[in-house]
Amino acid sequence: MSVFQEVLKIIEERCGKGKDNIISLATIGIGEEGKPRPYVREVDGFYEDGAFYVTTSASSTKMRQISQNPEVAFAASNQWFYG
Amino acid sequence: MSVFQEVLKIIEERCGKGKDNIISLATIGIGEEGKPRPYVREVDGFYEDGAFYVTTSASSTKMRQISQNPEVAFAASNQWFYG
Repeated sequence: MSVFQEVLKIIEERCGKGKDNIISLATIGIGEEGKPRPYVREVDGFYEDGAFYVTTSASSTKMRQISQNPEVAFAASNQWFYG
Repeated sequence: MSVFQEVLKIIEERCGKGKDNIISLATIGIGEEGKPRPYVREVDGFYEDGAFYVTTSASSTKMRQISQNPEVAFAASNQWFYG
């Protein structure tokens, strides 16, 4: 099993199985002078089959940033709650 | 009071006063082809006078990234704990 597959397995065990999770979702925004800046906010993500599903506005800052740079990162806190 | 000053006041109220806090610390790393990628991890930050103090290794990924791009962002979870 590759490292990537192992990570997916851990995410499935911790975040999947019908749970939704508070995750810290990090994105890249372009700051003054075109310099990349990190952004992060906590969102409620429902995990299934390798993807977190998050409810948000299409015109939100995070959506604008992701449309410009689809690279994102997340950290899952220890607050698991069940939907 | 400027927005910046208001934000500092809120951070002081929620994160300051001798507390340490779990924060999601986001940084920029440079991925393949020199493209900026967001990174985020939870750390324990002690807040005082406008700065979070975090214990980490000087050779850690986050320190390397911050030395290359000092722009960071954080989100504070609702888990306040006291040092």
